[in-house]
Amino acid sequence: MLKIAIIGVGTVGSSVANILKENKEIITARAGRELVPTIGVVNNLNKKRDVSIELTDDIEKVLNDDSIDIIVELMGGVEKPYEVVKKALEKGKAVVTANKALLAYHRYELEEIAKDIPFEYEAAVAGGIPIINALREGLTANNIQSIQGIMNGTCNYMLTKMIDEGVEYETILKEAQDLGYAEADPTFDVGGFDAAHKLLILGSIAYGIDAKPEDILIEGIENITSYDIEFAKEFNYSIKLLGIAKREDDNIELRVHPAFVPKNQMIAKVDGVMNGISVIGDKVGETMYYGPGAGGDATASAVIANIVDIARRGKGSPMLGFERSYGNKLSLQNKKEIKTKYYLRLEVADKTGVLAKVASILGECGISIEKMLQKPLGNQKSNLLLSTHSSVEKDILKAIEELENTKVVTQKPAMIRIED
Amino acid sequence: MLKIAIIGVGTVGSSVANILKENKEIITARAGRELVPTIGVVNNLNKKRDVSIELTDDIEKVLNDDSIDIIVELMGGVEKPYEVVKKALEKGKAVVTANKALLAYHRYELEEIAKDIPFEYEAAVAGGIPIINALREGLTANNIQSIQGIMNGTCNYMLTKMIDEGVEYETILKEAQDLGYAEADPTFDVGGFDAAHKLLILGSIAYGIDAKPEDILIEGIENITSYDIEFAKEFNYSIKLLGIAKREDDNIELRVHPAFVPKNQMIAKVDGVMNGISVIGDKVGETMYYGPGAGGDATASAVIANIVDIARRGKGSPMLGFERSYGNKLSLQNKKEIKTKYYLRLEVADKTGVLAKVASILGECGISIEKMLQKPLGNQKSNLLLSTHSSVEKDILKAIEELENTKVVTQKPAMIRIED
Repeated sequence: MLKIAIIGVGTVGSSVANILKENKEIITARAGRELVPTIGVVNNLNKKRDVSIELTDDIEKVLNDDSIDIIVELMGGVEKPYEVVKKALEKGKAVVTANKALLAYHRYELEEIAKDIPFEYEAAVAGGIPIINALREGLTANNIQSIQGIMNGTCNYMLTKMIDEGVEYETILKEAQDLGYAEADPTFDVGGFDAAHKLLILGSIAYGIDAKPEDILIEGIENITSYDIEFAKEFNYSIKLLGIAKREDDNIELRVHPAFVPKNQMIAKVDGVMNGISVIGDKVGETMYYGPGAGGDATASAVIANIVDIARRGKGSPMLGFERSYGNKLSLQNKKEIKTKYYLRLEVADKTGVLAKVASILGECGISIEKMLQKPLGNQKSNLLLSTHSSVEKDILKAIEELENTKVVTQKPAMIRIED
Repeated sequence: MLKIAIIGVGTVGSSVANILKENKEIITARAGRELVPTIGVVNNLNKKRDVSIELTDDIEKVLNDDSIDIIVELMGGVEKPYEVVKKALEKGKAVVTANKALLAYHRYELEEIAKDIPFEYEAAVAGGIPIINALREGLTANNIQSIQGIMNGTCNYMLTKMIDEGVEYETILKEAQDLGYAEADPTFDVGGFDAAHKLLILGSIAYGIDAKPEDILIEGIENITSYDIEFAKEFNYSIKLLGIAKREDDNIELRVHPAFVPKNQMIAKVDGVMNGISVIGDKVGETMYYGPGAGGDATASAVIANIVDIARRGKGSPMLGFERSYGNKLSLQNKKEIKTKYYLRLEVADKTGVLAKVASILGECGISIEKMLQKPLGNQKSNLLLSTHSSVEKDILKAIEELENTKVVTQKPAMIRIED
């Protein structure tokens, strides 16, 4: 029998406790022993919760209780859970967490502290999809060439609606908030930060590379307009908020941003609130993992999978996928050196010489145009929608700056990256 | 250091040896120790092979060599590899196999023999996709409600071409043979037997249920015509050869057959030679796993993932997913009691009263029609294409028999199951 304490009994915590009871028979058969949710730690004992386990607000007592084998950390936040988890590990208790922010900031310190004590976190990336499992154990024969992940259901729901139904950003954001998919302050989701936390975790498992959110390129979906969607439709793209980890020689690009993705790619077919992660390995080729990225029961499914793993074999795989140093030879690519294809939306004056001017600025920055659409806007203005061949981020940024400074471009240019 | 012997050095065996060398640096970092392909066993030492390991034709010597830690069985066949693997396990050597037929027939006996010795087989189902990993470790919190798998790339390639390009079965079979996707005798693939072997393995991990190929419903894609594809297009279905494991109360349906699948389902979006497996768990909901189901390097990727697992932790999870008996309470559903929706294609005489006759026979068998298309064939004949509401297999079989006996139906009726 393993005794489990759940720190934080909200939606996911309640699901963990309830599923361990409801599915006890099959879970016990799989784990080989009983997994007993023994106590839950909450801040407010007066709040009504849909669980039948004992509750306490005394976290210290639980951490000091030698009969507790596994701490499930579902508190949210970064520093407080870090202290809690650290203490649990120091007491020799196994830890399971769904806390992506904790890992985005402290995963390598926790790996040091945990040593031979199991520390698992399947639920921290893409909720119910066993992607940590796949990447850490299933694809170990491969040098990972790239990961492209739709890892934020809120953004994917909004983008899907914008594309399928032509709804504008502000309208769909309000709807997502009403449905409970987006928070009152939606920045963490729509700004790409949630996806970035998850991406950093995957980047460690794929490449052994240490980076923090502030080190990488993070852009959200706030500036996508119906013009961009028109371009996407014209050229058979979907638009997805992607977390991308990509190896070019010994440089690793880590970036989160909206991207045009060819509609026939599997990742482009992941719609609505669902998550999907495509991984390309040098030997296996592309594999893709699809499922619910959030929700109490789906997230709890991943938490419990970790508990079963611990019951079966204690410390299984190395926490971050490597037993020995490997990432040392790899370095994080500078944000400005990222290479990809780009889409630019330029509002221009509708007169002769404009196109020549735009083309010449791009040419001087070393950027060549692949596709272009010109759409009249009325008022003697047009939208120039164009895509480039593979270019370097700093060249694009320079071109955008120069375009903005010229008089023929009448509004700040918009840019979206293209992944094909 | 772990020393590995590869029994059978064909396409997959060569890939295993070569990848262990090519990707040695990252594999060693992940596994924590060196994994050395030491010797390969072949029948014909004179055949040229693209590997740089030592070869022998003396299998007994390899099995008796105490310095060999892991036997990778890639011989093909059933009884011969069973004897080899059994002997290896009895000698205390870990075993990794990609042999689905071996497991379809002997998995429970091998589980008995292996006991605490690692026996792994990720590559036996869906090649490079880590589906065993997902099902055996990632989804352990769930009662599995159903598995729908596209697990044969040859069939999926053929069906995709038939639908997208309107090519007839015989033409595309010839093309698949020319491309090397299908064997000269294609029965094992197109008849559904290959998919059935894989399904039986997944059925064990999901439900703990013991069944052999001869116990389950297996139908191939040989009888699909352009008329069926027309019906699929009309009603927004794709056609896939599915391996289905499904729980209804305590009965488990295991079946392989072509099926109409609604186009908006993720599994319907898996095209060409790719494989995809959709799993529905009672807590997590649907997750889907996509990737290459065959090919030397992709299959070797899964074989090596197993070797890394063994290097990291020896015996990890229970071989077939359960530490304790669970499947005893579940039983294999009788083939004739399967419940699903059906499509029938009836060639009928083009005269009054025919539809009434057909409808009355179906009604008497307890079958109600959901959708229908009538297409004139010329020669005073029509094709009646219809789908039913959920029905029981034996009722459909009875209806088909009665329809065949009546004079208004002028050809043996065709039937395809519908999964939505």
